[in-house]
Amino acid sequence: MRQPERPSYSLGEIVERLGGELLGDGSVRVTQIAPLDTAKPEHLSFFVHGKYRRQLLTTAAAAVIVGEAERDATSLPRIVSANPYAYFARASALLNPAAPEMPAGVHASAVVDGSAIVAGTARVGSHVWIGRNARIGERVTIYPHCFIGDDVVVGDESIIYPNVSIYRECEVGRRVIIHAGAVIGADGFGLALDDGKWLKIPQVGAVTIGDDVEIGANTTIDRGALENTVIEEGVKLDNQIQVAHNVRIGAHSAMAGCVGIAGSAKIGRHCTVGGASVILGHLEVADHVNVSAGTLVTKSISAPGTYTSAMPFSTHAAWLKNAAHLRHLDAMAERIKQLEARLEALERD
Amino acid sequence: MRQPERPSYSLGEIVERLGGELLGDGSVRVTQIAPLDTAKPEHLSFFVHGKYRRQLLTTAAAAVIVGEAERDATSLPRIVSANPYAYFARASALLNPAAPEMPAGVHASAVVDGSAIVAGTARVGSHVWIGRNARIGERVTIYPHCFIGDDVVVGDESIIYPNVSIYRECEVGRRVIIHAGAVIGADGFGLALDDGKWLKIPQVGAVTIGDDVEIGANTTIDRGALENTVIEEGVKLDNQIQVAHNVRIGAHSAMAGCVGIAGSAKIGRHCTVGGASVILGHLEVADHVNVSAGTLVTKSISAPGTYTSAMPFSTHAAWLKNAAHLRHLDAMAERIKQLEARLEALERD
Amino acid sequence: MRQPERPSYSLGEIVERLGGELLGDGSVRVTQIAPLDTAKPEHLSFFVHGKYRRQLLTTAAAAVIVGEAERDATSLPRIVSANPYAYFARASALLNPAAPEMPAGVHASAVVDGSAIVAGTARVGSHVWIGRNARIGERVTIYPHCFIGDDVVVGDESIIYPNVSIYRECEVGRRVIIHAGAVIGADGFGLALDDGKWLKIPQVGAVTIGDDVEIGANTTIDRGALENTVIEEGVKLDNQIQVAHNVRIGAHSAMAGCVGIAGSAKIGRHCTVGGASVILGHLEVADHVNVSAGTLVTKSISAPGTYTSAMPFSTHAAWLKNAAHLRHLDAMAERIKQLEARLEALERD
Repeated sequence: MRQPERPSYSLGEIVERLGGELLGDGSVRVTQIAPLDTAKPEHLSFFVHGKYRRQLLTTAAAAVIVGEAERDATSLPRIVSANPYAYFARASALLNPAAPEMPAGVHASAVVDGSAIVAGTARVGSHVWIGRNARIGERVTIYPHCFIGDDVVVGDESIIYPNVSIYRECEVGRRVIIHAGAVIGADGFGLALDDGKWLKIPQVGAVTIGDDVEIGANTTIDRGALENTVIEEGVKLDNQIQVAHNVRIGAHSAMAGCVGIAGSAKIGRHCTVGGASVILGHLEVADHVNVSAGTLVTKSISAPGTYTSAMPFSTHAAWLKNAAHLRHLDAMAERIKQLEARLEALERD
Repeated sequence: MRQPERPSYSLGEIVERLGGELLGDGSVRVTQIAPLDTAKPEHLSFFVHGKYRRQLLTTAAAAVIVGEAERDATSLPRIVSANPYAYFARASALLNPAAPEMPAGVHASAVVDGSAIVAGTARVGSHVWIGRNARIGERVTIYPHCFIGDDVVVGDESIIYPNVSIYRECEVGRRVIIHAGAVIGADGFGLALDDGKWLKIPQVGAVTIGDDVEIGANTTIDRGALENTVIEEGVKLDNQIQVAHNVRIGAHSAMAGCVGIAGSAKIGRHCTVGGASVILGHLEVADHVNVSAGTLVTKSISAPGTYTSAMPFSTHAAWLKNAAHLRHLDAMAERIKQLEARLEALERD
Repeated sequence: MRQPERPSYSLGEIVERLGGELLGDGSVRVTQIAPLDTAKPEHLSFFVHGKYRRQLLTTAAAAVIVGEAERDATSLPRIVSANPYAYFARASALLNPAAPEMPAGVHASAVVDGSAIVAGTARVGSHVWIGRNARIGERVTIYPHCFIGDDVVVGDESIIYPNVSIYRECEVGRRVIIHAGAVIGADGFGLALDDGKWLKIPQVGAVTIGDDVEIGANTTIDRGALENTVIEEGVKLDNQIQVAHNVRIGAHSAMAGCVGIAGSAKIGRHCTVGGASVILGHLEVADHVNVSAGTLVTKSISAPGTYTSAMPFSTHAAWLKNAAHLRHLDAMAERIKQLEARLEALERD
């Protein structure tokens, strides 16, 4: 009931807004996007992977987005695009416009310091704390229970979901999305050992987050020790990622859930990092590097490409047999060497 | 002082409520459950593992829960059960009833949208946000600082601990427990690459959580891209687990801390997943599969059983020697093959 | 503008407070600490690693902290210390005193139970919940949106950052720092299997945190099943660490981000655990053990030293070749054994 305004678009209207080539009846109207196998007659679907070809022939969808090579793969009304997956993303955004959940203005229960500047078009939810000299940009949405520390800047049109904590002095760019529970700017893990006890090293830097970054739920990005931790523009971080102090992540890199990046690592631009991978500290990863899921990166990577260290899984019984040898590979190598020497001696005879 | 009402039960009363066979003096009263080695004379203890047999002989406990095979293993008053560990769980629940921390009703500082329906028996703590058309069931407890988005449903008798965020449209079953900091229904990590930049794909699905599910602290469950992410009834998730969009976890499966499940993975019923394991996306795991701790599941598993990929640890010095060979296993295998060929040639001579 | 009081110190004043030997002009004043390569003329820098020796010769810093062996390595005014890194930490703390972000007293929007005792010198931020009989010590700071459960104790001078949840009955020592989003005392993952379904085992213990502990953002420490989970004094935990029920972590141990410790593990004193390592449950790790990053500790460690299980990474192409053999190590070992036997037979001829 709350979305009686759910939009419907004709294919012609969609192509007018998003481009692409229309084949078939442009007056067909669609209200939602859906996969081929579950699409209903009022849905727009998409075909981006050969393995769904059979579904393309049987889909109930009203129309389909297809690639150039598939322009004749269906008789349904269709939109042809050079990048049908990106077209799907854009069409879905058109059909599913974000409706504001927070009312306009600053909720009466929010606590905003008198020195903070909150744009008149910003929406600030209940029980939010906004500290001294913080600056909240135009059309920003801050959900309930967020903590915005002293001197924090949040750029225009950013969305901060509930229970996010942004420590003092951190800067968030424009059109940034930060999901619930994320923590930006907590102290980096800086310690000096002194006679068997740990001394805390003040973390004097902050965090700088570029435009169009998205940060997943419960992801943590620590403030720098002496300089800033930097997330460049267009970076996409999934949930539960840990970014340690002084890390720099290059523009348009994307990392899946549970990744950990240790202190002072420098990650290049246009990289991808698979889920649960770990990148150790004080190393550099070049642009256009892809790290497979579950990989431990222990030294710098200077060339683009894909890198992996996953241990293959097997039944526990098979693993028990094989894993025992992992502790004896050196002995195994030595035995091979000796076999080669002995065999060579025999062959010489 | 706040629990002067701590209950005490006689063994007879316990057996009357929970079943089992009573041997010895049923009038013995107990106030708490405790391990054999630290139990005091007012405690009920339990014996479920042979390695604690010696403790059974010396325990100071007033009485003990034992299995059928151990009915005569002690002369203490005892309760015999076919499943003594489950009996311990039930007896502990009897001796440790949950006392409500939140006062009855909706706290004055909570912000509840006028269109939301909150049962009169629900307890809603301070500073909670409840959005439009949300429905909160009978005897639900919502702790302070929780965010309950628009159209969210929380079933009867569920408990939502502090600082939990539940995004719009998600459905939580009955008797569900969600621990602090968990995030339900944040956007899945859906991106389309377009000319080197990432386009966000709207996440139109939600999250459905069945009855009797427990979700650990800071665990995250993302909303589906086009359909719902589904956690079936009786699933138990520990802390800091990441469940990506479109995942389905089958009924009565349990996962230990720090597990990651990538997008669209389908996990069977009655599975267990050990801590810090990772299950990649777009694969299926059969019912009754056990994944060992630290395992990376990279392809579908179609047969019940236990699966493992852990790399054994050793002293760093031993590891240094052995690990070097891991990068040369293929060369090692080739050398063995050549040795075999050469040896065969010699043997033929 | 809010820190017009940023302090400046002469080298003489620093040595007077922190010790060390002053060489050169003690009247030189510094306002901040900075690395050699980015230090400005008003900065104090530090030289702790030989690889930065060239930077020592070209730094613009006003003065430098050096070790005993490097007392003559620069002509700049300098402070000589037996432990220059610890000296840097202390000097940075002197130059970067923490300024309170929260106003004095209890914010009007906080909800404090009438039976709780909050020291007059404590600072309690907005929208905090403090439960029955909780005790908040002198000069404690609690940031907005924290949940302090019934009977919780927070020792003097501790700092609890925003959105932290501390469940009932947990005890936090003095000078403890808990970063945003951390959850202390959620239920341990205690389950008993009963006819294919999981029964919850009440978690009756709590969490005890010693003095001078630091806990990272979104780290979770579960309450004990029957006894307490214990974090001893001086322990430092980074972000997103999971500590399961009944764990004990010995004094002055430090763990990097994303570590997981399973139930009932006992970790010694003065240990270090590298990022993303996992320590399984019901085992013991001796004092002075170092676990490398990404290591899975599957059994007890009784001797000090460094332990590792990392799988080395490589290009994906190289990995594909080598990893296949990991599933056949046992067969490979058998082939070597047979080669040895056959070769021995030949040699006997």
